[in-house]
Amino acid sequence: MTRIHYQDCIEACLKCIDACNFSYVSSLKEYDLARLREWIRMDRECADMCAFAIEAMTRQSPFVAEICRLCAEVCEATANECGRYERTHCRDCIEACLKCAETCRQVSEAAAVLV
Amino acid sequence: MTRIHYQDCIEACLKCIDACNFSYVSSLKEYDLARLREWIRMDRECADMCAFAIEAMTRQSPFVAEICRLCAEVCEATANECGRYERTHCRDCIEACLKCAETCRQVSEAAAVLV
Amino acid sequence: MTRIHYQDCIEACLKCIDACNFSYVSSLKEYDLARLREWIRMDRECADMCAFAIEAMTRQSPFVAEICRLCAEVCEATANECGRYERTHCRDCIEACLKCAETCRQVSEAAAVLV
Amino acid sequence: MTRIHYQDCIEACLKCIDACNFSYVSSLKEYDLARLREWIRMDRECADMCAFAIEAMTRQSPFVAEICRLCAEVCEATANECGRYERTHCRDCIEACLKCAETCRQVSEAAAVLV
Repeated sequence: MTRIHYQDCIEACLKCIDACNFSYVSSLKEYDLARLREWIRMDRECADMCAFAIEAMTRQSPFVAEICRLCAEVCEATANECGRYERTHCRDCIEACLKCAETCRQVSEAAAVLV
Repeated sequence: MTRIHYQDCIEACLKCIDACNFSYVSSLKEYDLARLREWIRMDRECADMCAFAIEAMTRQSPFVAEICRLCAEVCEATANECGRYERTHCRDCIEACLKCAETCRQVSEAAAVLV
Repeated sequence: MTRIHYQDCIEACLKCIDACNFSYVSSLKEYDLARLREWIRMDRECADMCAFAIEAMTRQSPFVAEICRLCAEVCEATANECGRYERTHCRDCIEACLKCAETCRQVSEAAAVLV
Repeated sequence: MTRIHYQDCIEACLKCIDACNFSYVSSLKEYDLARLREWIRMDRECADMCAFAIEAMTRQSPFVAEICRLCAEVCEATANECGRYERTHCRDCIEACLKCAETCRQVSEAAAVLV
């Protein structure tokens, strides 16, 4: 895997950080905050995992396959949690998480073959 | 500052992480590694600082002004260090660092006014 | 500054991450969640900043003075926010934040002299 | 798993960050830098992974089992790489990595049962 092959995944991770952290901040401002506990936690999990994945890909980590596989799992779990709500920032978040999960799986599978 | 105002700076930080970490990996492969010690260190400093700034901006941190000001300093110091070498990945790195420093200063000044 | 001089500050940062993240998780489980919005945000800010400071000190970053000064500010702001509540994990958090701020200022001042 | 159960592992991760980053800085100062390329890279991988694991444990992440399992793998790979050299900071690094790997596996197995 070269720098170029990671580009889509890096972009998808950035969009996912942005959507999850926006969702986190927006949720913390809502009236009915108590319903959103688990979602707030997952947004942070996902944003932190994606930031870690970006750093790993850009430094061509020998653990990119494992890190991106884990990132895909976290993104999918976050999309599932988001799917329980009906807000606009939810839909953006679900979309960003699922796209990120997809590209992370592609990178993970391609990187695993090369090791 | 809203999510939209940070967008250029977030993109510039991502490009800077990518350029610095690529430069880091490339330098570690070079024959004349010993000349590049300080640069290798600075590349990592800069990549880590930019990743921190991205997370701070996306979660609308109340410390965005301070974090982005510090990020601008680190980017400028890295560009200065890079300027001592003559490789292609240096030039990319200098350009990415200076662009990132510029947008970080803009965000920092705008955010400081709003607090 | 050598590795040894950072040791107390690194330990204080770790205790602060632990107290802030415990407070974050505990707050998200509370009944009266809505009152705790700002605190939840600050806990995350502080934990992330302290983690960044630990990495910077352990890698003997040339920016330790600036990073630890900023960390001290974030810790003090978090202690102030925590001071508005009356829970056990608040008191632990305030204590950890103030201790961390104090050692961060010491490191920052000592490091600034050396540069 | 509660906060208390993670304590040993969190401490081991901190020691490992410290040893790896000290090793990283020390290696970058050595005369025969070229022999140490791969080690420098692994030190950074390991320090970053351990910092990520600390944050995950302190915020009681639902992904602690997976994150700590991956952290154990990275620590073991770093210990193997360090084992090829004969410096004092190598031996400290190997010891810290192996101890960290051991506690990460314990946390990972215990956390996996609980989910």
